[in-house]
Amino acid sequence: MNRDRLEPLGVPNADYDFDDTFTGARYRSDPVAFDRWLLNQLKSRLDETHVKVVLWDAEDSRPGEGQAIVRFCDRAALWQVLINPALHFGDLYSAGRIKITGDILVLVDEAYRYLAKTESPSRRLSRSRLRAPSLSDSQRNIHHHYDIGNEFYKLWLDREALQYTCAYYAEPTMTIEQAQRAKMHHVCRKLRLKAGESVAEAGGGWGGFAIFMAKNYGVKVRSFNISREQIAYSREWAKRENLTHLVEFVENDFRNITGSYDAFVSIGMLEHAGAGNYKQLGELMRRVIRSDGRGLVHSIGRDRPEPLNAWISKRIFPGAYPPTLREMMDLFEDTGLSVLDVENIRLHYAETLRAWLQRFEENVESVRTMFDEAFVRAWRLYLAGSLMAFVHAKLQLFQVLFAPVGANNVPWTRAHVYAEGE
Amino acid sequence: MNRDRLEPLGVPNADYDFDDTFTGARYRSDPVAFDRWLLNQLKSRLDETHVKVVLWDAEDSRPGEGQAIVRFCDRAALWQVLINPALHFGDLYSAGRIKITGDILVLVDEAYRYLAKTESPSRRLSRSRLRAPSLSDSQRNIHHHYDIGNEFYKLWLDREALQYTCAYYAEPTMTIEQAQRAKMHHVCRKLRLKAGESVAEAGGGWGGFAIFMAKNYGVKVRSFNISREQIAYSREWAKRENLTHLVEFVENDFRNITGSYDAFVSIGMLEHAGAGNYKQLGELMRRVIRSDGRGLVHSIGRDRPEPLNAWISKRIFPGAYPPTLREMMDLFEDTGLSVLDVENIRLHYAETLRAWLQRFEENVESVRTMFDEAFVRAWRLYLAGSLMAFVHAKLQLFQVLFAPVGANNVPWTRAHVYAEGE
Repeated sequence: MNRDRLEPLGVPNADYDFDDTFTGARYRSDPVAFDRWLLNQLKSRLDETHVKVVLWDAEDSRPGEGQAIVRFCDRAALWQVLINPALHFGDLYSAGRIKITGDILVLVDEAYRYLAKTESPSRRLSRSRLRAPSLSDSQRNIHHHYDIGNEFYKLWLDREALQYTCAYYAEPTMTIEQAQRAKMHHVCRKLRLKAGESVAEAGGGWGGFAIFMAKNYGVKVRSFNISREQIAYSREWAKRENLTHLVEFVENDFRNITGSYDAFVSIGMLEHAGAGNYKQLGELMRRVIRSDGRGLVHSIGRDRPEPLNAWISKRIFPGAYPPTLREMMDLFEDTGLSVLDVENIRLHYAETLRAWLQRFEENVESVRTMFDEAFVRAWRLYLAGSLMAFVHAKLQLFQVLFAPVGANNVPWTRAHVYAEGE
Repeated sequence: MNRDRLEPLGVPNADYDFDDTFTGARYRSDPVAFDRWLLNQLKSRLDETHVKVVLWDAEDSRPGEGQAIVRFCDRAALWQVLINPALHFGDLYSAGRIKITGDILVLVDEAYRYLAKTESPSRRLSRSRLRAPSLSDSQRNIHHHYDIGNEFYKLWLDREALQYTCAYYAEPTMTIEQAQRAKMHHVCRKLRLKAGESVAEAGGGWGGFAIFMAKNYGVKVRSFNISREQIAYSREWAKRENLTHLVEFVENDFRNITGSYDAFVSIGMLEHAGAGNYKQLGELMRRVIRSDGRGLVHSIGRDRPEPLNAWISKRIFPGAYPPTLREMMDLFEDTGLSVLDVENIRLHYAETLRAWLQRFEENVESVRTMFDEAFVRAWRLYLAGSLMAFVHAKLQLFQVLFAPVGANNVPWTRAHVYAEGE
């Protein structure tokens, strides 16, 4: 995916008036020489043909095609971004103290290009990655993100299965609905689900995948989730589909899964589990999977250990951590599980986020009505920033297929995943 | 692969007279009560319907179908096996002080079943796995195994490409020649080799894969190997094939690879590199692969860390170590490489070893003439033991595909690996 692919979204995505009361008159005196010097520090980091940075006294101007203009609306905003851009930029943009016109993707792209140039190759490991959130931590963290309203997510996720996880664009021209369907088939084929089998799902979202598995593969699913809103939604959905005999939604933490299943699956939950809990989760997976069973974990990850962006961690996903493959091995090695297959579909998440961001902008008026302008901006930046994090390989997407150590009924090759007409 | 698949080899594989001078009269007095007690200790570990264990005074008897008879020919042999079976069994069998009649695979299978029952789930990590053999260590270790005569390996490896690494049975009915060809295509498709590209190969064996790549994919290959006999053989072969303009064989350690390539490939070399050298090897791979290039490492591995069997390590493969995936991540994380795809084809190595063992037995007279009976027995046990190590999941076979971090020209899906007619 090169620069050419980063076409502007084609919708006016950040050109809003904002309420001046956010900033008041504080620090709004005319820029002084020191402000201009600070501005130049910032400008020197970015390619001016793509990103123009101006101060609060600049005349309004329209960005060209494939350009973004960033306006600092007060002196403190400028200082704060220079001190800690990763943490403060998001809050200042949300608050309207930084204004972006033009294509926000171009801006985020530029920022990642700057980071790539300056990053030191050897970085300290974050101690935070080993955090093992307790049940109540997890409850609070998950509520923060997933219980803000099912109606909000329905505005911009795929309309069929409400998948808030990476899609699989088997063909690059797919719609988000097709690509989410392809993702679910891809996972089910890897797991070789057969009618009548039992599946445990850890972190079921709004129930879309559990219902898909029951409907398309005839399996019996028990799906665990600690988001109350999602569980309620899932149960209603299963009722509407007349699938309550096949799908059971359990409001409980994955750590409390009991029983014995042909398959275990977890899509987009590991990011919230905490690296310190992986061994426990691995032991649990080994316990609930039958000796001839198998499992799949689908998770955002990293090429090397790094803490989550400070702003995302504070405002969007408290407690989240994308692990490296080495860190993920805590799930398998020494818990009696054997890794059969790892697939990294990083760029599919960039495409997924592009589709989400597009829908988000198409429905931005509804979001603004539901929440407020600050919320709109925060989510726009989160979606755009995540998209670029996958484009710039700051984030990966790993699907790991596994089976109990010594299981010899594993697939002979992976050809069945790609067989036509299956 | 269940018990049913372990049909006897169909060739008289271990029913030889041995030279009594190996043991002399030492400890050959009639068994006493204590000898019988020791024998019962051993017997209690094995299923007598499959494996019969007898002492030196027992009458000769023929094993039934799917059975093995183990005869201890002297008292010391019995003691030594009870004290340290992993180390001593191989030497005593090679020396003719333990005699096996019937199917050696049944015996090794039984031994692994016993081990599986008694193994403690938490084992100490071996410090030896972190050994980083120096250039001269590697030279000596490789000479020990690979320079014992090309003619010997030609007796039992596939006849087309002399691949002494795991084959890929795209169809389970393939011959070893077809499966080795399929393995080489599988690797080339994963790497998406295109005519005119350049490839660095680390550990090229007898040159079969380098020649295959040049011939079938039109790439330019530089292949590195420290086995003098293999290099000489490879060069002759390339000459016969009129491929010297495309393939260059370099007698040098992988640590000395220079240049810049579209692809890096290493099949069956990592096992000899030493886990302490992985980071250095990873840095080297990153350095020699172009920013839009890719690489593949194919290696025996483990589900959890464990030292290599003591006898194999002493007699067959000094310095060898099969890493876990976590250990392999030293190659990629922090060296700027991103893992795209991991495939575990463990059971394909069991099939490969079955084909090798079959050919070995078909040509056992030639091997005995080249070497001696002790050599024949050591290699038979090594091949049979390795086969069962893969069946019992003590060993894995990982193929890891990777690219420089941030390369966005990576394959969109893996479907091209499985596309017909490619």
